[in-house]
Formats: sequence, C-alpha cells, structure tokens
Amino acid sequence: MAKRLDNLGIDNLKIIQDDKLFCFGIDSVLLANFIKSNSNKNILVDLGTGSAVMPILLTAKAKFNKIYGIELQDKMFDLANENVKLNNLGNKIEIVKGNIKEIKKYFKANSVDIVFSNPPYKKKGTGVKNESIEKTIARHEIECTLEDIILAAKYLLKEGGRFYLVHKPERLTDIMCLSRENKIEPKRLTMIHSEENDEPCLVIVECIKHAKSELRINKPLIIYTNKNNNIYTDEIYRMYNMEKK
Amino acid sequence: MAKRLDNLGIDNLKIIQDDKLFCFGIDSVLLANFIKSNSNKNILVDLGTGSAVMPILLTAKAKFNKIYGIELQDKMFDLANENVKLNNLGNKIEIVKGNIKEIKKYFKANSVDIVFSNPPYKKKGTGVKNESIEKTIARHEIECTLEDIILAAKYLLKEGGRFYLVHKPERLTDIMCLSRENKIEPKRLTMIHSEENDEPCLVIVECIKHAKSELRINKPLIIYTNKNNNIYTDEIYRMYNMEKK
Repeated sequence: MAKRLDNLGIDNLKIIQDDKLFCFGIDSVLLANFIKSNSNKNILVDLGTGSAVMPILLTAKAKFNKIYGIELQDKMFDLANENVKLNNLGNKIEIVKGNIKEIKKYFKANSVDIVFSNPPYKKKGTGVKNESIEKTIARHEIECTLEDIILAAKYLLKEGGRFYLVHKPERLTDIMCLSRENKIEPKRLTMIHSEENDEPCLVIVECIKHAKSELRINKPLIIYTNKNNNIYTDEIYRMYNMEKK
Repeated sequence: MAKRLDNLGIDNLKIIQDDKLFCFGIDSVLLANFIKSNSNKNILVDLGTGSAVMPILLTAKAKFNKIYGIELQDKMFDLANENVKLNNLGNKIEIVKGNIKEIKKYFKANSVDIVFSNPPYKKKGTGVKNESIEKTIARHEIECTLEDIILAAKYLLKEGGRFYLVHKPERLTDIMCLSRENKIEPKRLTMIHSEENDEPCLVIVECIKHAKSELRINKPLIIYTNKNNNIYTDEIYRMYNMEKK
C-alpha cells in the first residue's frame, strides 16, 4: 500500500489516500461545494463514497443529521472507515458496504433528503484500463452505470429531495433524459471549465424529485486563471478554504 | 404598417421589417452562423421563417441548393416573399405558406439535409401578451410547440441530417429529451451569454438524426464586452460581417 495523509485545508480535516486505489480529484471538492444542506435533520447518501472525501468535507460546510456513504470495494470501504475514524466523525458519517444496484437492502424508499454522487465517468469498454482493478471500477461503468445511480436516487429520495451529480459534458444528454424519465427533474446546471476559453471539462447537475420542468443554467465556473502555472481562480481558492455556509 | 429597410451588413443583402410584426433579433444571426452547409446539393428547411432573415443570411455564408422557409402567418409570409424578391434570391429561397404540424403536406419524408428553427420560446399561457397577434404567435407556443418542431425535423431529415435550434436555457432538458426520443441526437451545445459573467441567455443545439449518443459542449459564446455601452465581442462583430466559410 502506498498510503499518504493529506490535510483537507478546513476544520483540521484530514484524509488518508492510497495511490494504488482511486484518489479524489477536484471534481469531488467542487461537488461538495454545490451541495446545499441547511437542516440538522437532513439525511444524506453518497453513492460510491470512495475514501469518504465528500462526506468528510460536508461536515465542515453543511448542516445535516447523518451522511451514509455506500462503497462496494473492500479496500475503499476500509479506507473510508479509516478516514471517518481519523477525523472522529463516527457520529456524523456511516460507511455502508454494498452495491448501489441493491440499494433496497440497505435503505427504506423515500427516506433520504439529499443524494449525491461522483460516479465512474467512462462507459464500459472505453478508455485505457491498464491500472488496478480498484481504479478501473472507480472510473468505468463496470459495476455501476449512470442509470444505476439515478435509479438508486429515485428510490432513496423523499418528495422534493435533491440529487447532485458531477459528470463529463459528453454525458449531459444521458443525465438529463435518464433523470427526467425517473421523475428527478434537472433544475440547475453548472458548466466547469479548466480555463476561461476552454470547452467545459465537467458538468454539475442538481435535480429535484417530482419538480416541475424548468432548468436554470448558472454562470460557468472556471478552475484556473493559469493552468500551466497552477494558479486557481478566486472562486476555487475559496472552495479549498471551505467555509460554513 | 410601420415598415423599415435594414442593411444586413454582408453581400449587400437587405431586409424589410415591420415593427408591428415580429422583428428578428441577434438569436437569428447567431443561429445562422452555426449552420454548417458545405454542399451545393443540400436542401435546407427553416421551420417558422418569419421575415426569411436566416435563409437570406445563409445565402452569404453557406453552400446549398435551396432553402425552403415555412411560415404560417399571412403577413409574415408576404414580408418573407418581399424580402426574397428584394434580394433577387428567388432561385435560392422559396417561402412555403403552411403549418409545421402539417409538414407532410409540403415535403417528402427523409428528403432534407438540414433543418433549422428559431421557434417561439415561451410556453403557452406564460409571459406578457399585450402585443399584436402576429408577435404573440411568433413568441409563444400557441400555433407551434417545441415538440411540433422536433417532430417536423424528424420527418424531414435524411439519415445523418442535421437539426439546428436556438432556444432559452430553461428549455434545455425539454430540447434534449424530445430530440433523443425522436432519434435526433444532440451532438453539440453552445451556451450564449450576454456578458462574460452572466448566466446564459440562449442555447444553440446541433442534433444529428440517428447519431450515436455523445454530446460536445463548445466554449461559451459571449455577446457583449460591455452591454451598457453596446460594445460587442470580436466574435459577434465577425458574425455581423459574415464571411463565406
């Protein structure tokens, strides 16, 4: 194991990652910043929690009762639990070992306020896969497709509950059509661009269960003012020093 | 009638408009610039052509055999014909008086290379309607809905034919889901922003009949560097002096 301990830059939160497994990227940090949870009663579920980075970040920025992070892979499940313990967050975060396709085994229907996911981006059979099986499963739709994620969100969410997803732009039609088919209506869309004049590299979508159809598209979010020199925009610096909202 | 003659700024093209009817806006100019037609054999159809501004602009920038512009309203139909004559384009543009919902009366199925439309943006029963009946029909989905447009495009297009649409961002989910349902797959999406840090004010979508699913999202198109002082971006100035591509 090639483990390392990173500081998350807020509330003294820390995270252990393993270079042999899937390490979180800026997409998880961005998505965590889009999730609005303002009630101490809220129950949240993270579909495919990985190292539990999003639940841990959310303890610093959102009000909620509990976040359940579902993780299929043994090694990631162990790492997520290790991270929850490391930050003494056992009362706020619970990692559930399980398969998103069998969500009914672990949760009641219509019981969750907010569902979120940073799922595998790549379709099965596409892209390079000369990497560990853990990384392949985290990146490719082998164990879990976009439709599996949306069906799980549909099952879990209460009426009016919210679903947050980060994904690649080329899947936007899939996201919108599958969400609407399953009565989780896309309500907000943000395009993420690496630099200002780039095509978007990511999309973040907020959907609401059983909402009426009307999408709002936010202004674009730019990551770097200068990518080559690794200089972020003010908005990203603010996110990395995440403040309670 | 409060008619006026405007110069279109390219190839000495001119257009008569009538302030009592619907006058074209920048959306028509933007959409005309997105339409790629490079063959002298191409047949194009403009669904709801209004004053025929888009077909007239396309004579200056695209290669094609003929553009048919369909128009339902008597006064707009007459104005469109007047504009075609004014520019001596009777051999390139033909205005068809008719209802998009009865498209089968006027055209053969699978016979068209490119379909485009700048349709009414507003749902029936929404928004202010204290205006002429002609303007109301041009702006609201009274005589023609988004679904009517997409069904007509589905009927008209050849295999691999392209459909171009400009619309409001809040209808993006409708556009994508209705297009995919009707096997006209969204392939390119451009967000149009009034100024750089604004939310988008328009979306332009290019769909291809029976294409595989994979969307490309372009970099955003910005209209103004300074809206208050009416200063456009270089990209818009280039469009208004449209060059043959």
